[in-house]
Amino acid sequence: MEQRLSLITLGVTDLERSRSFYADGLGWTPSTLGSGEVVFFQAAGVVFGLYGRDALAADAGLDNSEGSGFRGMSLAYNTRSRDEVDAVLALAERAGAHITKPAEEAFWGGYSGYFADPDGHLWEVAWNPGFEIDAAGHVRLPPDP
Amino acid sequence: MEQRLSLITLGVTDLERSRSFYADGLGWTPSTLGSGEVVFFQAAGVVFGLYGRDALAADAGLDNSEGSGFRGMSLAYNTRSRDEVDAVLALAERAGAHITKPAEEAFWGGYSGYFADPDGHLWEVAWNPGFEIDAAGHVRLPPDP
Repeated sequence: MEQRLSLITLGVTDLERSRSFYADGLGWTPSTLGSGEVVFFQAAGVVFGLYGRDALAADAGLDNSEGSGFRGMSLAYNTRSRDEVDAVLALAERAGAHITKPAEEAFWGGYSGYFADPDGHLWEVAWNPGFEIDAAGHVRLPPDP
Repeated sequence: MEQRLSLITLGVTDLERSRSFYADGLGWTPSTLGSGEVVFFQAAGVVFGLYGRDALAADAGLDNSEGSGFRGMSLAYNTRSRDEVDAVLALAERAGAHITKPAEEAFWGGYSGYFADPDGHLWEVAWNPGFEIDAAGHVRLPPDP
């Protein structure tokens, strides 16, 4: 098994609402692939997908039981500059996201806040000067010493 | 906002158990960064992180309420060949994962199954002949027509 992952798929209750949040709200361009049941976005080296919660649960062999409590997962968008953090959080809020934590100085030396998408999926928006982002948008941990 | 994401962080109840699942079980090499509170893995163009559920909830400004029901999220590992799907699911099972769906032919023309990691986080293991994986492990959607 190689050390990589390929897709992140979020289960959503209203596919059109979620497509609109990411496409119209955040400005991402969906792939034409998918034909109504699923929406894919090329997100640098991975694929980001939106799929009905019920369909995703069924595909995974699970019941689509209504979730409650903290889901224990966060995605992150790392910015290229500190100022971008507030700009991206403001963009997400205008698009209908709930800001769960406004940006603040982080103990690890960066600056970050969080928003929740229309289904409550968490995104951190972070400026981390220790993590390199290449021109294509891939992020790299600092090399081991 | 660029069309990309940087990290996927899973909240876990026992960091050492989860580190061992991914490092010893699946064979991934953690970064030396992180010093006990968090474990990072370079996963091709993104970073995959493990962090205490309570710490992740607090960082996001949320209560660490015990979760229940379907969490509505899946990660995916796309294989380079069909045979690898069963091999990766078997590796995950030996490492302690629960197979929620053994691999089967998928309606979209591939072959896939699912496992749940020690905290129940879902991974699909899929062979999808329509999605290209480059030498570095980045996945690419087919170009729009």
